[in-house]
This record gives sequence, C-alpha cells and structure tokens, in this order.
Amino acid sequence: MAKIAFIGVGKIGQTIAYSIIMDGLASEAMIYDVIPELPDKFEHELRHALATRGLNTEILSSNNIQDVNGADVVVITAGKPRKPGMSRRDLFVDNAKIMMGLAKDLVPRNPGAKYVMVTNPVDMMASVFMNYSKAFTISTGDQVETMRMRSFIAKKLKTPVTKVNGFVGGEHGEDAVVLWSTVSVDGKPFDQLGLKREEVDQYVKGIAAEIIRVMGGTTWGPATIIKDVVRSIVLNENRVMSIATPHKVDNDYIHIAVPTVVGNVIGPSIEGTLPEEEKEKLNQALRDVHRVYKENMAQLVGTT
Amino acid sequence: MAKIAFIGVGKIGQTIAYSIIMDGLASEAMIYDVIPELPDKFEHELRHALATRGLNTEILSSNNIQDVNGADVVVITAGKPRKPGMSRRDLFVDNAKIMMGLAKDLVPRNPGAKYVMVTNPVDMMASVFMNYSKAFTISTGDQVETMRMRSFIAKKLKTPVTKVNGFVGGEHGEDAVVLWSTVSVDGKPFDQLGLKREEVDQYVKGIAAEIIRVMGGTTWGPATIIKDVVRSIVLNENRVMSIATPHKVDNDYIHIAVPTVVGNVIGPSIEGTLPEEEKEKLNQALRDVHRVYKENMAQLVGTT
Amino acid sequence: MAKIAFIGVGKIGQTIAYSIIMDGLASEAMIYDVIPELPDKFEHELRHALATRGLNTEILSSNNIQDVNGADVVVITAGKPRKPGMSRRDLFVDNAKIMMGLAKDLVPRNPGAKYVMVTNPVDMMASVFMNYSKAFTISTGDQVETMRMRSFIAKKLKTPVTKVNGFVGGEHGEDAVVLWSTVSVDGKPFDQLGLKREEVDQYVKGIAAEIIRVMGGTTWGPATIIKDVVRSIVLNENRVMSIATPHKVDNDYIHIAVPTVVGNVIGPSIEGTLPEEEKEKLNQALRDVHRVYKENMAQLVGTT
Amino acid sequence: MAKIAFIGVGKIGQTIAYSIIMDGLASEAMIYDVIPELPDKFEHELRHALATRGLNTEILSSNNIQDVNGADVVVITAGKPRKPGMSRRDLFVDNAKIMMGLAKDLVPRNPGAKYVMVTNPVDMMASVFMNYSKAFTISTGDQVETMRMRSFIAKKLKTPVTKVNGFVGGEHGEDAVVLWSTVSVDGKPFDQLGLKREEVDQYVKGIAAEIIRVMGGTTWGPATIIKDVVRSIVLNENRVMSIATPHKVDNDYIHIAVPTVVGNVIGPSIEGTLPEEEKEKLNQALRDVHRVYKENMAQLVGTT
Repeated sequence: MAKIAFIGVGKIGQTIAYSIIMDGLASEAMIYDVIPELPDKFEHELRHALATRGLNTEILSSNNIQDVNGADVVVITAGKPRKPGMSRRDLFVDNAKIMMGLAKDLVPRNPGAKYVMVTNPVDMMASVFMNYSKAFTISTGDQVETMRMRSFIAKKLKTPVTKVNGFVGGEHGEDAVVLWSTVSVDGKPFDQLGLKREEVDQYVKGIAAEIIRVMGGTTWGPATIIKDVVRSIVLNENRVMSIATPHKVDNDYIHIAVPTVVGNVIGPSIEGTLPEEEKEKLNQALRDVHRVYKENMAQLVGTT
Repeated sequence: MAKIAFIGVGKIGQTIAYSIIMDGLASEAMIYDVIPELPDKFEHELRHALATRGLNTEILSSNNIQDVNGADVVVITAGKPRKPGMSRRDLFVDNAKIMMGLAKDLVPRNPGAKYVMVTNPVDMMASVFMNYSKAFTISTGDQVETMRMRSFIAKKLKTPVTKVNGFVGGEHGEDAVVLWSTVSVDGKPFDQLGLKREEVDQYVKGIAAEIIRVMGGTTWGPATIIKDVVRSIVLNENRVMSIATPHKVDNDYIHIAVPTVVGNVIGPSIEGTLPEEEKEKLNQALRDVHRVYKENMAQLVGTT
Repeated sequence: MAKIAFIGVGKIGQTIAYSIIMDGLASEAMIYDVIPELPDKFEHELRHALATRGLNTEILSSNNIQDVNGADVVVITAGKPRKPGMSRRDLFVDNAKIMMGLAKDLVPRNPGAKYVMVTNPVDMMASVFMNYSKAFTISTGDQVETMRMRSFIAKKLKTPVTKVNGFVGGEHGEDAVVLWSTVSVDGKPFDQLGLKREEVDQYVKGIAAEIIRVMGGTTWGPATIIKDVVRSIVLNENRVMSIATPHKVDNDYIHIAVPTVVGNVIGPSIEGTLPEEEKEKLNQALRDVHRVYKENMAQLVGTT
Repeated sequence: MAKIAFIGVGKIGQTIAYSIIMDGLASEAMIYDVIPELPDKFEHELRHALATRGLNTEILSSNNIQDVNGADVVVITAGKPRKPGMSRRDLFVDNAKIMMGLAKDLVPRNPGAKYVMVTNPVDMMASVFMNYSKAFTISTGDQVETMRMRSFIAKKLKTPVTKVNGFVGGEHGEDAVVLWSTVSVDGKPFDQLGLKREEVDQYVKGIAAEIIRVMGGTTWGPATIIKDVVRSIVLNENRVMSIATPHKVDNDYIHIAVPTVVGNVIGPSIEGTLPEEEKEKLNQALRDVHRVYKENMAQLVGTT
C-alpha cells in the first residue's frame, strides 16, 4: 500500500480514485480539487464506501494544494476536459499552464513521488510536467488503446479477452500504432485470425469518440486501466503495459508509449524485441510528438 | 457468480454495475436502459475495463427489456432521479408507473430472480414492484444510513471504521431510526462514547443532501453498499444488513429496513433481539410507510 | 487490517496463518510456537509469499510467548493434535493445561484482544481459556460442520454451493445438531429436496474422520473457514456464522455453537428465530457440554 | 478463469492447488494423484473451503490420469520429493521416467495446454517433458529465488518489499545467477545499498535448505509464487517473471530462467536489455544445463 494523491476529482478523477482506493492500494489517499467543497463531499462518499468494505484507509481532502505532502504516487487529472469535436492537442496551451503551476506546487512537497498524468493531451502534459519539474512522470500512453484493441478482437472472435494478446504504442489517440507483431489470440498471430487491420485500427481510434458522443466522456475503461497501472507500481507487479515513458530528445523529455515493465521501477521496455518496421514507427511517433510539442510550447510562450 | 441484470444505467446504475462486475460477481451481466445507444456504449466501456482485469464476464446490452432473461438478481435503478429540493415521496407517482411496467415485462422472463430496488422512493418502489408482481423484492433500505452512521462515528472519534458497530432501521431517509442499542465502538456502547445522539442523527439524515448539493447526486457510497448487498446474496455470505424487506400489512407488502441476514435466503431478521422501544419504533415506521403508501397509491390510481 | 497473533504454527496453524495473511487481513502478524526455529523458518516462507503478492505485512516470529503483545485477534492452535481413533474429549486434560498457561501469558499483554480457539476439543478449550482468563473467547464451533453440510448437499444435488443455506449448531463433532429449519436450496426447504436427514447427518459427522484417515488431518477446509471468521471480525462484515460463543451456566462460561453475527462485536445470535424443538436441542447440548466440562475439569484437578 | 489440472497433490501440490483455486482462477479444477483416495479426500477439503468462500468452482478428482481432459493449464508436481542432503540433480532419473509417462498420457487429451513444471530438478524435468511431448512447458525457474532475494533485501534494509526490484536467472538452485544490474531499492542501484553481494547470494541459495531442515520442505513460498505465475497466464497479466522457458540447443529444448513476460503468450524475455556480462552468465548456464541434461539423459537411457 502507498500514499496516493489525486490532483483533480472531476468525473474521471473520482472514478480513478474510487477504483484505486477500493482495490486496497492506498494506505492514505489525498484528494485535491480547486472546486470548493468537492474534495470534502467526495471524501464523505468514499468514507461511506470504505465502511461497507471494511477498509480503514486514511483520507485527507483539501482545496489547498499545499496539503498534498509525502505522496508515493500522484495521479493528475486536473485541467480542462476534452469536449466533443475538440482535438487532444487543442487543449495543450490551457492545460500546460496548469501543469506548470502544479509542478511548482507539488514537486517540492512530494520528493521521490511517481507522477501519473491523465490530463489531455496526455503524453504532452506528461512531458510538460517532467520538463518543468524534473520529476519522474509517466502517462497512460496507449495502455487504454491496448485494452480497447484486445476487447474488440475478443468480441469479434467471440473468444475470452484473456486469450488476446498485443500492444498499441506510439502517440495516444488518432496516431496510435498497433504493434501487429505482438498481436495474437491463444498463440495464433494476427494474420491467421481472419480480421482486417483496418477494422481493428478503426475501433481502437474511433471508439472513444463514440463513447464521448453518447456518454459525455470516457470514464470506466480508462479509470480501470489507470488503476491497474498504479496497482502494478504499488504492488511492484512488473506488468508490461504500454504506458508513455520519457524519452530524451535534444534537451526535452518527450513521452510516447512503448510496452514497458511497470513496477517500483518503470522499465525496461520491450522495444528491442520488436521488428525494425515497428521500431521505426515508434521512432517516427517520437519525432512527430517532439515537433508538435515544440510548436505548442512556442505557442504557449507566445500567450504568456 | 450469478447472472445479474441492471435495469437502468444512468449515473448510479452505471456505478453499481461497474462495482458488481469488477468485483467478479457476475458470470453474465445484462445491461438495459431506455436511452438509445447508452447500454451499448456502456458495454464498450465495461469491456475495456474487463480486459485489464482479466475477467471474461459475458455482457449483453440492449434497449429492449425483453432481452433481459433468466437473471438470478435484478438491480433496478430506472426511473426519475431525485432532484435537489424534491422529497423522496414526490417521486412516487411517476416512478410507480415505471415499476408497474417493469414488473409486467421482467417477472415472467426472470423466474425466481431476486429484485433489488434502488429507484427512489426506494422502500415504496420495492413495495409497488412486489405487490404488482409477487416477485421477491428488497431495497437497500437503511444500509446506506448504517454505513454513513458508522463512518461519521469513526471520523469523529478518529477510530478505524471497522471498530464501529450498529444499525439504522425503519424508513429510508429523513425518518430513519438509529437503533442505538446496537451502536458501539470496539465494544463500548454509544452512551460511553461522548457523542450526542443529535449530531449522529443529523449527519445520517443530512449528509445525502449536502453531497447532492455539491456533487449533483450520491453515487459512490450507495453503489458500493448495494454492491455488497448483491455480493452477500451471490456469494451467500449471510451478512446482517439493514436492507428493507417485505412485511405483510393487511393485503400489502410494505418494505421497511430491519437488520436482516442476507444470502441466498433473505432472513431471518434480528428484530427479536432489539429492546421493546426500538421494536416499537420499527413498527411505527411500518404503519407510517403503509399509510403513505396507500395515500400515494390512491393518488396514482387517480392519475391513471 | 488488524494485529493478529498465531499461537502454534503446526500444520493447521500454518494453514490458518497463511490464509489470513494472504487475504490481506493482518497489518502485523505475530507467529509463536514452542518448537525451536519453526516460527523463524515459517516467517521466511511467508516473506517469500508476501513478496510475490506485493504485501508489506509486518511479521514477527518468536519462541518466546512474551513477544506476543498488543494483538487485536489471537488464533490459538497450540496443543496436542487429535490422532486417528482418539475422541476430541480425550484430549481435554493435556490441552487444558496448555490453555491455562497461555491464558496467564497472553491475556495481560494483549488487552481487549478477541481469542479464537482452534485447539481440540475446541468448545471446551474455549471455555477453559475464558473461565481462567475472563478474556472474550470464541471457537470455530460448528461453522466447519455448517460448510461441510452445504457442500454435501450441493454436490449431491449438483447445484452451486452458493444456493445452499443452513446451519449446524450445538457441540462440535459427533453430537453436532443440524438445524433443519434453516436448511434450504434456493429457497426450497430441506423436506422438498429429496434427501434423507441421515445421509446429511452422516456426512457432516463422518467426513472429518475419513479425511484424517487418508490425509493425516483436516486442514484446508477448517483453515479457510477460520480465516473467514477472522475476516468477518477484522473487516466487521457482520456475517452470521455458527461459531461457539460463551453461555453462562452456573458460574462457568460454556461454549456451544449457535448461528451468531460475527464482526467487531460478536452477537446477537439468531437462536430466537429457531423453532422450539431446535432451541431445545441447543439447550440440551449446552447442558451436556457443561456436564462433560465439569467431569473433565474434575479429572484435570485430580491430575494437577 | 481457466480449466486447470493438478498432477500430483502431495504437500506442495495441495498448497499450489489451494492457492490457485481460492484465488478464483479456476473455473474447473482437475485433481490427480496415484495415491488411492487422496484426490477424493482433498476434493472434500476443497469443497468445504469453497463453500465458505462462495465459489462454485467445479472439481473433479481421480486416480486415473485419463480423466484429465481439456485443461488450459497443467501444473505438475508429481514425482519423488527432494530429501534433505539430496541434490536436485540426483532426482533426475526417477522423475524423468515419470515425466515421460505423463507426457504420453496428458498431451493427447489436453491439446494446447500450457504445462507448468514444479517437480525437481525443475528445469530439467521441464526439458524432459517438452522434448518428449513437444508440448509447451515452463518451470518456475528462478522466480522463487527472485522473491527470496527481494524479501531478504527488504528485511535487511527494513524497507517494504514492494520497493525492492530485481531478478535472479539461470539455473534453479545452487547455480542461480543474481542479475545485479536489475537489483534496486526505490530506484537506488544495488551498489548504493550498503549490502554485500555474498550475503544476498548466500541467502538466495541457502534459505531453501534451512527451511527444509526445520519444516521438512518448502511449501508456502514456492506455492504462492507458482500461483502468481498461473495467475499471470490465466488473467493475461503480462507480468515479467524469472520463469524457465525453453531454449533450443542443438536438437533439445533446454530450460533456464530469464525474466520473461508471462501471459496468454509466454515472452518475450528482457534478456536483450541486460549487460553483456549477465547475458554471458545466462548463456553459460544454458550450456551447463544442456551438458548435465545430456549426461543425465545418457544415464537414464542406460537404466531403461
């Protein structure tokens, strides 16, 4: 168990915090949001849930970021949400400013913490946070896409999802890269499954927008996946997950997703075991993200 | 594991379904709602969550109530929500009509199922559903109040919530009855705790409105508690919970909450072990609910 | 989570400790046995298991009973085992002496602890321990018989065991009393199941000897059941279990099993809801156990 | 959940089966042993445990190997145990004959199953089984040593074991290779921990004999670790574990342990990320094991 801070408890932040706390991963949970009374009332809800579960997790809620101290893991969902029709990158400027503020406030009071970025555009927010704070930061990267891919193939083939393997990497979102060499069902490689790459690709990249259109946002899927990332860190399970990790490009940390061992230590990745063609796609993603990151940062500087 | 149906997947329905499915209680989950596409998109979210959890739960989603067949447990959250300022009883007429429709549609296709009512006013909706269908129905009763009471005392005394005992019974909501004889902390009876009955009472009855005011509704607490009610049924855990069970009054089943053994069989209650004064309060609650039930039913008949 | 002491870590003691610790119930586990090095080597085994589970439970092992301090729950398995052909009562004298010693050593250092007796003859050892120490003591009573009965009926009828209800009470072992009024399968009472009382009775009372004959002892069943008794205490789950609780007879606490609410508080029982005939059988069991207890105690005094 | 067979239910086999079944990983468990009545009586014990846990796992027990059909995972513990003073390799000839028989009996009836070898000498028995059957086989390799190393460092430094990283690879037992480059505590590499390599090495290789001397065998540690290997396969958790996997050498499959992704697919390993020196040690281990394997096989052929 670990001391876990939740920075932002809107819809997705609440769902993540709930999943993590109910899974018994937190010895202490710190709940922070800028909205008055929201952390407090959410704390009450959590206490009622803990009572029935028989968990004695300590909970601290606050509207004051300075109350967040000594965390082992910090999950950041604060920021503006992605609205229907908006691209993830559109959010960059507004949310980057929030990350810079959080970096300044959180890092000195939480030395050695691991930061898990959930705010969109998620890879770049992780990069902003890490470049400004030098604190180790990951984001959920393409682990959500990874699970969406597995669930699509399982449903399509009417096979248990636990028999579906494979990872999605690169950039989170529309430019994610299915790592086809890793995809298999009960040992059978993708090419023998009778599925088309296009239909898988389309689902992986399109389902989020479909869910957002009907439900107003994606919550249950991403929150559970982020819970398992935090679980693998806190219990040191050493799962391989396609989270986004920092890659040094010139003087910047740039985050893209590569299947990586997740535990008390994050790494190594299994990139070296991929075919050249897929490695090249991941490198291309890294260059693309870096370019856009620099463009966005230039725009950000222009606005401040 | 059991075949579990979720009738209504709005905010609270989704949270209950998520908690139950992620706890591994459902071999098959049936998701129903009247809103087009909502069950389908919620199914996608759940599938993404199941993929990371390694669960192969079967999920069926539908906008057609006739697709709900063969359930062991049916959780009903369908209906209009309670809005700020509205009393639970105000909802009676509109939601009772919905229950009558559901009774007709669900009961023939789900023989032997246990119905768990969550729609407000929860005790009376359970009574309407059971009186119209003759199918065994419970509601969450005062198990939510029970856990709110325990969590309040734990926080107030800075003691682990697992050391706080006691139940709330009678009617759900403003007229709930704290069963003071059952309240203790690590064996110490309530009167020795240095707390006032009024502050406990006020929290138990007032906190829901506070949460609704800030968060728009109560979800995490009630959903987790309802999950544990369903868990105790499905795993036959035989927990004592203050759920509302049917009591025959004249020719009606009337639901009020009494601490009751919850498993594959619901009952017996521990009412016989309570002091006369508390038994009398529960009887009074039963008479009050019956009277209001009949008034509301008369009004309902007037509107149809 | 709680601080839990294990007094005796032979075969059954190890299995109980393992089940409890791996279920995440212990914040701290204290392992005691008289056999040199055994607690220490068992601690190593547990640490290897905790490493893979990601649990940071504190473990203390010792051959010195005085190292056992501040426990919330104390599970006692110390004593001589029941050997093939031996009756539970034969063990009385030898193990009662051990209990008297433990009472003196444990109770002052573990104020407020709940004692869970597993050493045979289990009900009487609970009584000896409680009468000598005045510390609150329960034993597993007939919860093991309860689960054996349910599993027999489930297998016989090829029905999931979670649909089988009912309790066994009274004395542990050959004189246990099936509480037929409580037995049902998915709501159907026992008399409609097409089973004979004799076959159920025979299994409940005979299967332990069969297992002992082939496997040398019963471990997995009882250990898991005792784990769930401790779980219900530690998480305050309020499960009804047919554990043996103290009943005051003359000046003695005498332990017999009645289905009882188990949580941070032990009680009330549901005895009041049973038919007169079954209540009378439980009363008869109480008188029988008291008589034998007094005879055995007289014999014990004669030997000391 | 999966259909899991347990071939051999002596002390370690029982403990593994119990851990796996109680963790909810088996939809169906098949219990086999040559000892008359043992599978049957163990089945009874498991049924009593399942009753309290609320699990409806199907269990089949048999003394007839031909009853084991359609398994997804087969855990093999059958064979002679390692006795005090005996080397793992001494066991080769006797147990290899048993493996050849099992290969013939099990593989045709369990197509596509994954075999998990636990019988000692564990790596070589995996090789014998796979070379004779061509069925995919792993063994626990050095995952047990891995967890022993982590637990030793945690205890020595009084730090939570979840903060200790690192793997042991190569041959199981006295020649295991600590992969020092992977060892760290909360990010600090081994060389900065103030520990000596010798003391770690000595514990990793010596603790099993110490436990065997006092307790008669190692059970709880290995069983829990094997449970987690099976869990990672069944839930497709993709954990990196230092299990032994088949490496083709000449015409033989030879098993040595390398940290490897464990899920529905076994692999890839993270060997490519290790420093040259450690890779060379693993290669050396592979050559050593192959040589001894061939010597032992020659001896085996001589005896048949």
